[in-house]
This record gives sequence, C-alpha cells and structure tokens, in this order.
Amino acid sequence: MRKLIAGIVFFMSIAGISQAEVATDDYVTYRQSVFNLMGWHFKQMGAMIQGRTDYDATEFKQRAEAVAALAQMPAEGFIPETRDTQLPHHVKPEVWYQTERFDELMQGLVVSTTELAKQAGAEDKDDLRAAFGKVARQCKSCHDRYRERM
Amino acid sequence: MRKLIAGIVFFMSIAGISQAEVATDDYVTYRQSVFNLMGWHFKQMGAMIQGRTDYDATEFKQRAEAVAALAQMPAEGFIPETRDTQLPHHVKPEVWYQTERFDELMQGLVVSTTELAKQAGAEDKDDLRAAFGKVARQCKSCHDRYRERM
Repeated sequence: MRKLIAGIVFFMSIAGISQAEVATDDYVTYRQSVFNLMGWHFKQMGAMIQGRTDYDATEFKQRAEAVAALAQMPAEGFIPETRDTQLPHHVKPEVWYQTERFDELMQGLVVSTTELAKQAGAEDKDDLRAAFGKVARQCKSCHDRYRERM
Repeated sequence: MRKLIAGIVFFMSIAGISQAEVATDDYVTYRQSVFNLMGWHFKQMGAMIQGRTDYDATEFKQRAEAVAALAQMPAEGFIPETRDTQLPHHVKPEVWYQTERFDELMQGLVVSTTELAKQAGAEDKDDLRAAFGKVARQCKSCHDRYRERM
C-alpha cells in the first residue's frame, strides 16, 4: 500500500513537472512564432521599399497591418519562468531585470508599427520610407540590447 | 584552373540548392507559426468561455482581434513547393489538389474570426458562445479534411 501511494505521488510529481515545463516552453515558442511572423512580413515590405520586388500598395498595407497586429503580441511571452528554458533562444538575461526599459521598447514597437500601418496604402512608396525606417530602428534598438547574436 | 572553376561552380550549385531549400521551408515555418499563435489565443478564449479562467471582456477582445488578424495570414504559406518539405508537418496531400475547397475553408476562417472579433467586448460571455462556436467548427472542418492526426 505504501509502495502504491509512493508510486502515485511520484507519478503526480513527474506529471506536474512535465506539465509545467511544457507550459513554460509554450511561452517561448509563442513569442518566437510572433517574431518569426513579424520578420516575414517586415522583410517583404523591406524588399518593396528597397526596390528588390515590385511595390504593391495593397500588399504593403496588408503586411503593415499584420506587423502592427503582431507587435501587440510578443510581450505576453516574456514571463520570468522562461528564463531557464532549455529551448534554443536569443534572449539576453538583461531582459529579466531591465523590465521597465524592455517594456518601453515593446511599447515603442506598437506605436511605430501602428503609424506605419496608418500611412501604408500610399501610392508612392517613398512616402513610407520614414515610417518604415522608424520601425526598423525600433527593432534594432531592442535587438542591440536584448537579443543575443548567434 | 579547370579545377578551380569546377570548384566554384560546385560551391555555387550547393549554395543555390541550400538557399532554395531554406526559402521553401520558411513557408512551412511561417504557416506553422501562424497556427501556433491562433491556437494560443483561441485556447485562452476557450478557457474563458468554458469558465476555466475568469472572463475578461477586454482581454477576450484583444485575443479575438489577434485571431482575426492571424486568420488572414496562413494561406500565403501553402505554396505547392512545400509539398515535399522534410520538416515535420501535419498537411494532408489533399491540400495540394483540392485547392478550391481549401481556399473556401480558409476564407470561412477569415469571415468567422472577423465576426467573433466584432462581437467581442460583450459584457456577458454567453453572448459570444455562438460566434466562438462558429470559429471552432471552422477550425475543425478544415482539420478533419486537411490536417493529419499525429
């Protein structure tokens, strides 16, 4: 009987641990998915801005709106419990104690991408260069501080 | 000299092949990221609808808007070149020849998620059950046809 109880307790502790791990890693995968999608749409806007692909105002606007919607999402994935994840990741440890600065940069991303989405649709892509550049600088300023180079 | 040229040509062909592979697999990762994020937000709306977590009208609306924005995105990732990807995936081969049916289901997802986002914000979560259920059925009808069970 004691063995049975010990077995059940052990099973529950394992189940509990592994469930917690899955849940924590889901946050990592979640935020990585967000950044992957932002990069996808942003790069294709960049190709249009730089003239590597034809500029299509409608497509540009769709991508700018996608990026603005996505910019709202990653913050939720940065919970302190993910600090010790075993998944491969690029997050510098500074994220976990410079939270105010990090939140500001995240908010800056929301503001700059919303502005780009608002201006998107312009007939002349050159009218979008400034707003696009602001988003690019916003990405870079956060990456420089909080993203590990690989 | 001939050896050097052969070496360069070989290097370029390898580089070319591997670059093309990366590009094709990027489409797979892209669409998988979209579905991952849709699932993330949808599950948390489901927990509220089912009373497993507290209902928060503002949070529900944010998640519904996220899902509606995401619903626009996955179609772009289903290019036929990804059919033979070596990445793990759930796509049934029917997707590649039942394109009209598949596009209809994708469009149904856009419509039903947009409707849920519009209704979201309601004070009483029970008012959202029907619209939420429509999205759930839309997911399921596509999964039943085109998503391999693992």
